[in-house]
Amino acid sequence: MTKKLVFGHQNPDTDTIASAIAASYLLNQTMGEETEPVALGEPNAETQFALDYFKVKPLRVIEKAETEQVYLVDHNEAAQSAKNIDEVEVVGVYDHHKINFSSDAPLWFINMPLGSVATILYYEFKKSNIEIPSDVAGMMASAIISDTLLLKSPTTTSMDQPALEALAEIAGIKDYEAYGLELLKAGTDLSSRTAQELIDGDAKSFDFNGHTFRIGQVNTVDIDETLERQSELESAMQAEGYDNFLFVITDILNSNSKALYLGDASNEVAKAFDTDIKNNVIDLPGVVSRKKQVVPPLTAAF
Amino acid sequence: MTKKLVFGHQNPDTDTIASAIAASYLLNQTMGEETEPVALGEPNAETQFALDYFKVKPLRVIEKAETEQVYLVDHNEAAQSAKNIDEVEVVGVYDHHKINFSSDAPLWFINMPLGSVATILYYEFKKSNIEIPSDVAGMMASAIISDTLLLKSPTTTSMDQPALEALAEIAGIKDYEAYGLELLKAGTDLSSRTAQELIDGDAKSFDFNGHTFRIGQVNTVDIDETLERQSELESAMQAEGYDNFLFVITDILNSNSKALYLGDASNEVAKAFDTDIKNNVIDLPGVVSRKKQVVPPLTAAF
Repeated sequence: MTKKLVFGHQNPDTDTIASAIAASYLLNQTMGEETEPVALGEPNAETQFALDYFKVKPLRVIEKAETEQVYLVDHNEAAQSAKNIDEVEVVGVYDHHKINFSSDAPLWFINMPLGSVATILYYEFKKSNIEIPSDVAGMMASAIISDTLLLKSPTTTSMDQPALEALAEIAGIKDYEAYGLELLKAGTDLSSRTAQELIDGDAKSFDFNGHTFRIGQVNTVDIDETLERQSELESAMQAEGYDNFLFVITDILNSNSKALYLGDASNEVAKAFDTDIKNNVIDLPGVVSRKKQVVPPLTAAF
Repeated sequence: MTKKLVFGHQNPDTDTIASAIAASYLLNQTMGEETEPVALGEPNAETQFALDYFKVKPLRVIEKAETEQVYLVDHNEAAQSAKNIDEVEVVGVYDHHKINFSSDAPLWFINMPLGSVATILYYEFKKSNIEIPSDVAGMMASAIISDTLLLKSPTTTSMDQPALEALAEIAGIKDYEAYGLELLKAGTDLSSRTAQELIDGDAKSFDFNGHTFRIGQVNTVDIDETLERQSELESAMQAEGYDNFLFVITDILNSNSKALYLGDASNEVAKAFDTDIKNNVIDLPGVVSRKKQVVPPLTAAF
């Protein structure tokens, strides 16, 4: 059995890190695999809070996949993966995003429209009757909280809450709402981060019918505080050199967003969100989910 | 809840029909869906034998998907699906083939490299604690027998035999080996079928790096008997008008194949199978699986 790496997307978030850890453990137990969970970047502040809380070591950071066969979690598109992904064989995927994937052979590909990949993995553990170690359960609970904004995002499904409750119990989290607020707030201290860290922190690349988009997102408890840094943010966005850059600033307490847009497709973007763009700012009331509320209207508009 | 169709690939085989029936039943029970299993063609002789044996009505045959949302089984590539598949939304897939799929939104996509889709569905039923009706179990057992050639094909995995045994018991099949031989033989009476029926019966379209291939396959107990009709078969293959046509004739008792090839990529095809093409005939000892032993070498060669 040759070693295989398990990793999530670039700019790892809590679900990507937790899912790599959980999937690697599950595969080693059930499939007799020898896998290592790794990451395509350093943990963000929220993930670091969870790692510290559950005393889990940060994952080894890689730039290129170093094994011939790999498992992907929390992404399936090559643009979000390791740089050399086209040179290795993907033998398994656990994901909850839209699909843009092709292979030369059959493989394990488990994609479900649930709130987080950790939710999917919780049910896979249950199906296999494998006990989840308490620190792994803690990371998985954190991932559900992070991706569903404490079960409030529209991406939340009826399967997420039971999984979160069960995982919180295994992890010894007595009050998952209190822990969840702490976790989410740990990710929202934006003042200490540079403009470039903000726009890059959770950014992903997309292709909408030939239009290349970079879409970043930050969570905060005060959108206007972040918008005070508009010119600094726009300079950083411009410096990245993408055709289109959309930077979504999300108020996780009130479930609203505003976005900064730079690019030459203002008409289409305005149409996508059925609103005006004023001074590069788009008001997005009720929007919290890039996957469910930002990407689909852009896909439709182009 | 609006109605959704569930269907497998064109030129339906036993796994495609059985999986549509089983998946529809499972979805209606577990997801509260209102689905109807349908087929993209009439049942072949082997499938008809199973339908008669378990007293199951043949599925309604459709040409175009008639509902806005559909589930796919036993295929994921548009070229093998309903003609208007690009105009409807695929909300779920159960498959065991290579993947070539993209979507605008997350969906249920369960692909596992197991012997048949019926095997995957057996474990999905088990996970959900849903009882399988005995006629559905009979069709699912037939599908496993058909796709794995009674557990002898190299596509067979360690998960297929336990599934087949459990399904045979539910279906009241006392000796699944005896039933399996009867079933497979029912599909091999080739003498009564026209050349066009033979080359079309289980044919699928593929695209290898821009080279369009049609690959048909028949099972028999006597390859040479079928090859006596070579000129008749070649005329039928030519009349279809594909750039490349590969027609694989498989001896299911001895697990060997010979193939007829018409097209202008003889060098690449010969290289793919590491052999010569003599009088359009390729000797393929040990080859029984299009998916595992025919498509991957062609993919690699082009």
